[in-house]
Amino acid sequence: MLATRGRGAVEPNPMVGALVVRDGQVVGEGWHGKFGGPHAEPVAFDDAKDAAAGATLYVTLEPCCHHGKTPPCTDRVIASGVRRVVIGMADPFPQVAGRGTDLLRQAGIDVTVGCLEEGCRALNRPYLKLLRTGRPFVHAKWAMSLDGRIATATGDSKWISNEASRRHAHQFRGIIDAIIVGTGTVLADDPSLTARPPGPRVATRVVLDTRGRIPRESKLVQTARDLPTLIATTSLAAEQDLEALRAAGCECLVLPEIAGRLSIDALLEELGRRWFTNVLVEGGSGVLGSFVAERAIDAVRVYVAPCIIGGARAMGPVGGDGFSLIRDSHDLGPLRTESLEGDLFITNS
Amino acid sequence: MLATRGRGAVEPNPMVGALVVRDGQVVGEGWHGKFGGPHAEPVAFDDAKDAAAGATLYVTLEPCCHHGKTPPCTDRVIASGVRRVVIGMADPFPQVAGRGTDLLRQAGIDVTVGCLEEGCRALNRPYLKLLRTGRPFVHAKWAMSLDGRIATATGDSKWISNEASRRHAHQFRGIIDAIIVGTGTVLADDPSLTARPPGPRVATRVVLDTRGRIPRESKLVQTARDLPTLIATTSLAAEQDLEALRAAGCECLVLPEIAGRLSIDALLEELGRRWFTNVLVEGGSGVLGSFVAERAIDAVRVYVAPCIIGGARAMGPVGGDGFSLIRDSHDLGPLRTESLEGDLFITNS
Repeated sequence: MLATRGRGAVEPNPMVGALVVRDGQVVGEGWHGKFGGPHAEPVAFDDAKDAAAGATLYVTLEPCCHHGKTPPCTDRVIASGVRRVVIGMADPFPQVAGRGTDLLRQAGIDVTVGCLEEGCRALNRPYLKLLRTGRPFVHAKWAMSLDGRIATATGDSKWISNEASRRHAHQFRGIIDAIIVGTGTVLADDPSLTARPPGPRVATRVVLDTRGRIPRESKLVQTARDLPTLIATTSLAAEQDLEALRAAGCECLVLPEIAGRLSIDALLEELGRRWFTNVLVEGGSGVLGSFVAERAIDAVRVYVAPCIIGGARAMGPVGGDGFSLIRDSHDLGPLRTESLEGDLFITNS
Repeated sequence: MLATRGRGAVEPNPMVGALVVRDGQVVGEGWHGKFGGPHAEPVAFDDAKDAAAGATLYVTLEPCCHHGKTPPCTDRVIASGVRRVVIGMADPFPQVAGRGTDLLRQAGIDVTVGCLEEGCRALNRPYLKLLRTGRPFVHAKWAMSLDGRIATATGDSKWISNEASRRHAHQFRGIIDAIIVGTGTVLADDPSLTARPPGPRVATRVVLDTRGRIPRESKLVQTARDLPTLIATTSLAAEQDLEALRAAGCECLVLPEIAGRLSIDALLEELGRRWFTNVLVEGGSGVLGSFVAERAIDAVRVYVAPCIIGGARAMGPVGGDGFSLIRDSHDLGPLRTESLEGDLFITNS
């Protein structure tokens, strides 16, 4: 799909694809390639040249009608001479929201809205969530054995998933806005939380550190001058620890605390305020438990290794209290799977 | 595949399929349909009638050459007048084991052995294991949430999997020789462990009951006069409890006990002695842990519900001590998945 070629580069803008079709032939195609760059429609018209006159424009999202980083697409659509525009879905962006469609109709163009709407919505779920709620779309990731263990009873966890899974996970890190972990993960694994190789986007490393316990010697803090690092903490942290972290290049964000726990919702609200579209919770078990308890997970990305670890005391991926009743459990909807050289990737996104 | 039409009905015989092919046309087909019934070869020859003369017989397993429940297939092959026989794999059954092939060759028939051998081996892994080791092939089944929980932290477990999964699981119960559970499962769920609807085979219900604690009021004991019920126990059980179970129609099998635990291997040896080909361990967590600890699981059948239960204290499918190191974990090899109306079925069989 053309639109997805912009994934990781266009956010917080939506992914958009456009086709100019004349006499059943595609005469121009375009997609929104990166944030601040040209939108899908002008790219498609540049591709179609004179062939656009009298043709039909198919576009996954309603054309914009405001001056943002680029001029209004509606002007360009009207100027192109297309006779008909088929739009996948209306753009809920406040400055568009049906006005793009109105302008095209006023110019005498035949406009259809809502063609394959479900697919167009699925394409931009994170964008739509951010607009609707002011919070980023939250992906949760874990790697486990087929019996749902993320470590052995004695704590061995390297590596449950295979190299293909780890490459796959790194690729995703390179297209998102933030990677979220807890202090426990930092203490246990000392991760750098970078995408290797890098992708189109550098994720902010976010550590949930209610008490400001992250060690200054950790890789995250040591690389904080080069890579965005956000310590999400609370008033339970000592001010001098936060000062030291700030001096090392970290940003410290003091969030409300409820019963000794950092407010996940306050964190997401703040990340949404920064126009973060996609964030990934990588664990550990306690952090995933907190997100699940607040029903703050929108999609999962689970890597299953073809092995059994066993152990009544071996840790599962999602800790905390958990739900008491099966019927209250967090419903994920349809899952799809992908085989990764022996590992299984399961997701609902 | 023709051979698989006998699944559940032919055991402890192998599944076998046969084709008679003449001038590139299939002129006869047959499969071994049930234990004690005709083998695949005579069925195929009955189907082919006179067309077999000069034709080629393709058969997944070496034809038998001994008088068992039916006369030797080699006689029938020779009498059929086929010119060539292509055999998927040699039959390791002691009374055949290459002698079938020798007899055909001595009769002047051109014989090829080992065509698609890997597929033919995969078809009959349980049969081959039973012959090789004297122990049945052990399937392990569990249903869990995507975060690897078989119950909530407070013990709610009904139902994690959906109806399609439960139908799928019942179908499997109807083609196997035994279903194995622990006393804990009987105490918690009071299951009847029957196939609903019934399949071609009635599985013996086996309860691992080291101390003879299964309640006489349980459905299993109450139905023991109608359905085969085996209480696998040890000398730690009180003789009077076992007498009561026997009086109720249960068979009590006293097995060696090691450090307070029933010997899984002794149980499997006994089940193999009874020519059980496929047995299914349905749990609970402790029993699956014991089987995994003895590396006694040959294949898994996992139903994954698209939900997150969470909870650091919620139970996982495989308990016990578990493995200490990831590299020692029980390797399952390639997994395949099947979608069951929202649930995911994962197996390596």
